[in-house]
Amino acid sequence: MSSTYGENLRLTIFGQSHSLAIGMTLEGLPSGKRVNLDELSSFMASRSPGNNAYSTTRKESDTPKFISGLVNGVTCGVPLTAIIENNNHHSQDYELLRHVFRPAHADFTGWVKYGESRDFSGGGHFSGRMTAPLCIAGGICKQLLVEEGITVVARIASIHNICDEGDIVNGAQKLSKLSAGEFPTISESAGEAMEAEIQRAKEEGDSLGGIIECAVLGLPAGLGNPIFDGMENRIASICFGIPAVKGIEFGLGFESTRLLGSESNDSFCLVGDKILTETNNCGGILGGITNGMPLLFKLAVKPTPSISKAQKTVDIESMTETELSVSGRHDPCIVPRAVPVAEAAAAIAIYDALLERKKEL
Amino acid sequence: MSSTYGENLRLTIFGQSHSLAIGMTLEGLPSGKRVNLDELSSFMASRSPGNNAYSTTRKESDTPKFISGLVNGVTCGVPLTAIIENNNHHSQDYELLRHVFRPAHADFTGWVKYGESRDFSGGGHFSGRMTAPLCIAGGICKQLLVEEGITVVARIASIHNICDEGDIVNGAQKLSKLSAGEFPTISESAGEAMEAEIQRAKEEGDSLGGIIECAVLGLPAGLGNPIFDGMENRIASICFGIPAVKGIEFGLGFESTRLLGSESNDSFCLVGDKILTETNNCGGILGGITNGMPLLFKLAVKPTPSISKAQKTVDIESMTETELSVSGRHDPCIVPRAVPVAEAAAAIAIYDALLERKKEL
Amino acid sequence: MSSTYGENLRLTIFGQSHSLAIGMTLEGLPSGKRVNLDELSSFMASRSPGNNAYSTTRKESDTPKFISGLVNGVTCGVPLTAIIENNNHHSQDYELLRHVFRPAHADFTGWVKYGESRDFSGGGHFSGRMTAPLCIAGGICKQLLVEEGITVVARIASIHNICDEGDIVNGAQKLSKLSAGEFPTISESAGEAMEAEIQRAKEEGDSLGGIIECAVLGLPAGLGNPIFDGMENRIASICFGIPAVKGIEFGLGFESTRLLGSESNDSFCLVGDKILTETNNCGGILGGITNGMPLLFKLAVKPTPSISKAQKTVDIESMTETELSVSGRHDPCIVPRAVPVAEAAAAIAIYDALLERKKEL
Amino acid sequence: MSSTYGENLRLTIFGQSHSLAIGMTLEGLPSGKRVNLDELSSFMASRSPGNNAYSTTRKESDTPKFISGLVNGVTCGVPLTAIIENNNHHSQDYELLRHVFRPAHADFTGWVKYGESRDFSGGGHFSGRMTAPLCIAGGICKQLLVEEGITVVARIASIHNICDEGDIVNGAQKLSKLSAGEFPTISESAGEAMEAEIQRAKEEGDSLGGIIECAVLGLPAGLGNPIFDGMENRIASICFGIPAVKGIEFGLGFESTRLLGSESNDSFCLVGDKILTETNNCGGILGGITNGMPLLFKLAVKPTPSISKAQKTVDIESMTETELSVSGRHDPCIVPRAVPVAEAAAAIAIYDALLERKKEL
Repeated sequence: MSSTYGENLRLTIFGQSHSLAIGMTLEGLPSGKRVNLDELSSFMASRSPGNNAYSTTRKESDTPKFISGLVNGVTCGVPLTAIIENNNHHSQDYELLRHVFRPAHADFTGWVKYGESRDFSGGGHFSGRMTAPLCIAGGICKQLLVEEGITVVARIASIHNICDEGDIVNGAQKLSKLSAGEFPTISESAGEAMEAEIQRAKEEGDSLGGIIECAVLGLPAGLGNPIFDGMENRIASICFGIPAVKGIEFGLGFESTRLLGSESNDSFCLVGDKILTETNNCGGILGGITNGMPLLFKLAVKPTPSISKAQKTVDIESMTETELSVSGRHDPCIVPRAVPVAEAAAAIAIYDALLERKKEL
Repeated sequence: MSSTYGENLRLTIFGQSHSLAIGMTLEGLPSGKRVNLDELSSFMASRSPGNNAYSTTRKESDTPKFISGLVNGVTCGVPLTAIIENNNHHSQDYELLRHVFRPAHADFTGWVKYGESRDFSGGGHFSGRMTAPLCIAGGICKQLLVEEGITVVARIASIHNICDEGDIVNGAQKLSKLSAGEFPTISESAGEAMEAEIQRAKEEGDSLGGIIECAVLGLPAGLGNPIFDGMENRIASICFGIPAVKGIEFGLGFESTRLLGSESNDSFCLVGDKILTETNNCGGILGGITNGMPLLFKLAVKPTPSISKAQKTVDIESMTETELSVSGRHDPCIVPRAVPVAEAAAAIAIYDALLERKKEL
Repeated sequence: MSSTYGENLRLTIFGQSHSLAIGMTLEGLPSGKRVNLDELSSFMASRSPGNNAYSTTRKESDTPKFISGLVNGVTCGVPLTAIIENNNHHSQDYELLRHVFRPAHADFTGWVKYGESRDFSGGGHFSGRMTAPLCIAGGICKQLLVEEGITVVARIASIHNICDEGDIVNGAQKLSKLSAGEFPTISESAGEAMEAEIQRAKEEGDSLGGIIECAVLGLPAGLGNPIFDGMENRIASICFGIPAVKGIEFGLGFESTRLLGSESNDSFCLVGDKILTETNNCGGILGGITNGMPLLFKLAVKPTPSISKAQKTVDIESMTETELSVSGRHDPCIVPRAVPVAEAAAAIAIYDALLERKKEL
Repeated sequence: MSSTYGENLRLTIFGQSHSLAIGMTLEGLPSGKRVNLDELSSFMASRSPGNNAYSTTRKESDTPKFISGLVNGVTCGVPLTAIIENNNHHSQDYELLRHVFRPAHADFTGWVKYGESRDFSGGGHFSGRMTAPLCIAGGICKQLLVEEGITVVARIASIHNICDEGDIVNGAQKLSKLSAGEFPTISESAGEAMEAEIQRAKEEGDSLGGIIECAVLGLPAGLGNPIFDGMENRIASICFGIPAVKGIEFGLGFESTRLLGSESNDSFCLVGDKILTETNNCGGILGGITNGMPLLFKLAVKPTPSISKAQKTVDIESMTETELSVSGRHDPCIVPRAVPVAEAAAAIAIYDALLERKKEL
């Protein structure tokens, strides 16, 4: 069903952009795990809007209120529910969208799906705001993974035509030390160029997309299952839950299709008594199962649909073609804010697989 | 769990490369649907090995034997199970693989996961042969979709550095008329160049990968759900069940990250009283839900791991590094045989969503 | 996972007796359904404690606050979440229970399961209070069933040794008109005798159990599936989610084991062009599938575990045997309050099956 | 979906009474577990028809053929599939049943559900024969439980009005030593009286039902989850998959409703450093979770629907009322053959919960 993910963990996300609150329930967390709420807040803050040029001016506190499942900051074994109250919404901004669909948004498909009763205001359940509860769940999983020696880290690999430099595995330590306000690239100059590019798009009433790269370090070999339940299937399945993601690749991904087998195959080698691979073109997954190397994937994030440039669309009240210039508060590029969301999604998928692995050992 | 897919349909795949048989159970098919077994056979044949230069010389009949769920060729509403007997396997070819892992294969991860009891012979449950039962299920779904006016078609978009020409939507009719032996490209000359390239790799003891593009035409708007249960999530989830797939993108996918919002957004327009989009950069999916335009996606298929060129690997018996040259019968490029598998996967995901949509209407 | 039920609907229940709030998320409701909130309140009230002799004196408002999924009282197609705030709890009443287990309660098993981090206060997630969110979901489903001509009704069939009179199908109309304060029996004198019996048990510091009978009228034939997914499986599966339920039977149930086949088989007959059965010993279900007759089941509810009479138990702090007299606020008999909960559970299971049936037609 | 059960294990049952074969797939078994095939055969034999007065004369070999998942008798970690070929069916016996429904059978509901395409022959997928694959899965789980020190045992508690004597926990050892041909009661004289009663019913062209009691010994405390995923929910959910089961109760079940709390509550006590209960009225389950005492439940099995005595029914060809005397091969009482099926169902549910518990520890 639409808003539930997971097998050993189960995450349910609820809420609409302008409902009383948004939130999530996470079932299956072990009992007795302390959640560092400060750390969670600062993780949430890195997704929050409003701290810089490239974000919507909507200010949300985004502070999760834990309703159940946590006693004095420690999990008690039963479903953990947290909500974030919605209190800074401008529903009137959206009245036009009742009958005029924003291109590349879910306004049209939401109308087809749910009819006149849909909650179109602010994008409803399709809103990028629904990634906040995903970050609550993911932020908690990320903390629990650290206890197991596993680090999840992501960066902007590119915005429009500007690419970050360096290798994410080498840059992981640097990336994991960035604070909420900082731009998540390894190369600072690349980051600055990206920021400038976003500023330029904003001024032109346009928007940009980009690529996010995510790495999971410290993973044991043996997570995931063959065929439909491999780590690729599971990670893809949750990552396409992030609005605007239109592609995912693991390791070399699409680039591997242009190599010979002798070039792309990762040779096995011995390092001490550990079996590793010399390269990591497969992104740490063979046959759906982790091989103990860093798990690597990239997400394609399309440009933000909402732009103030006029675009052609349809008005269903008059059933005529019309033009729409989306005003209101929108990110000219959501890629920076989607970086923690990618981490959250990866952390949930990995922690779910880790719990499962315990059944086998 | 590993080998089960679907929500309204449920597909379970079982078998190993060298077990008595392989097969599948498909639950949730409506009662009273006639399965055209000849058409299914010819669909299965397009995946079968052994008809050409670029395939393994393993000859398998690949004829499904229907055990249950079908009475006189018509579904009776209860689980449909079909098996394919395994009778041409050379288990001795694989004895070496008990302790020497093939690079880029699941030999290593299978050993980590299942230990000494794993079935490593012929790749076991990880074998590409497990796509045959996927094609039984998918071939049936493809037929049922045709009854609803929906066509699933795929082609090779590229092999190594050689690309097909033309647009898949325009070429769909041509592609759907190809018979089992023919090379699934729109441009015949591109196809010939690809075949030559495969032949060359084979002679060098090497292998190639490529990109498959798949289109689903005639879809109604409204299939799929927001967040974790969108059509992208569902299709990705099944497609990563195809061995060697390392990436998936919908519509423009990764390319969209290099466009401006004003370039990538698909404008809505009216054609008669139908709301369509002028371009289809989103690949027919907005907010996880089909918008009535062709659903388009591409799969990255890495080069076949098994190559006869010597590769470095590890022998776990002696715990030493060693070299391996994979002999036996292997495809130098599995992309052509994976084309019907991609269609099968898409057909299953779509038919599952179509059944679900009926609950809502 | 523990707190989730359903296939086409999905209900998740969260909260603990003394957490900030308790609540539920219901996914899969169709869009555009008006929820009658007054009717829901009065349904909730019939479960509420504190209106009579036989209930705990804990007063809770039990008013659901709808967080998402409802716009102006109408479902919008996405997950519906409602919470009830907890504001009248006396956690200090429970401090003793940290180390002394109440017999017949989940205090011991909760400790084994979740360890020291469990939320034992007020029974935590095991509390009977968790049936309030079940009633939110069930109350909504009950309303939606009425739209389809389906009525769910339940009564107390017996308390201790006192039985209600009459047939639930004949008494259904009377039962469905009872208001929140009234005792849910067909025979008023039987009801009075039960109330007196409960009063007597209360005075003796003891408690009583009983049997609840539930009927679903107006069902179409064809709901449910064979083997593991029949209506019996589904209804049993949700009903054992009601604390204190220790048995369930459909139609004649255990009594049918003492009949001959010729006595218990329900003959088919024609009434106009409808195929009915002359008797309804099977409780409206054959092969897991509804046959169009009233669906009938009974639940065995054990006596309330919490009694003020001294009972032998164990103190895990000192690891000694001890005696416990449970003070605090407890129902001497929860059967009356469990009647709407049984209706709620049935309504959810039935509405889930009804949605599923739409896929097949 | 209809024919699938389980969360950590997943069991799928396929086949119809007269299809080519029937069978099952069991996913989630650990790798490296030896299956004792002789023991499995003798377990299967105790369910097999044809060895005595009270069974159908249909002779089936019921020998499972393992298609996948087992290499040299040892599980290899991937889906285990086994089939049983159908080769002694008399489809012509059933031609009348195309249009005349047997009372108390699923003929009518199968017709409503699946229409003219249903497989009515021999009861199709509703046939008691589908319990054979359940016994393959359950027989394997039973063996794996023994490795963990857990015993599953069942007996006939009553047939019609004749009850077995003794306590199942005390009689467990005796019961577990019975061979396939023997009557599963603790008291031999009670067993003989039951057999005579069955013979009498058979001579009168009638049938009998009865109650099966099942015990699981050696269970650790801590299996199962609160609310919808307790052991009662899970066991009920699979047991109603056994045809003719119309009721289930745990511990004292319905009888507990006639006791006071002070009578039915199980006091905790210390035996060494183990916390046990003095009585076991709750059947080893508190709050859905095992408490370490024997898990006890009873199943109500209605009389076999097929009897040769004439019964009133409906002919849908002529749409008239008619009489039916069911000839063919039928059990006058299926209770004895259902005893191993109950054990199988319990074993599957328990082993599933045991795997789950490993995630938590």
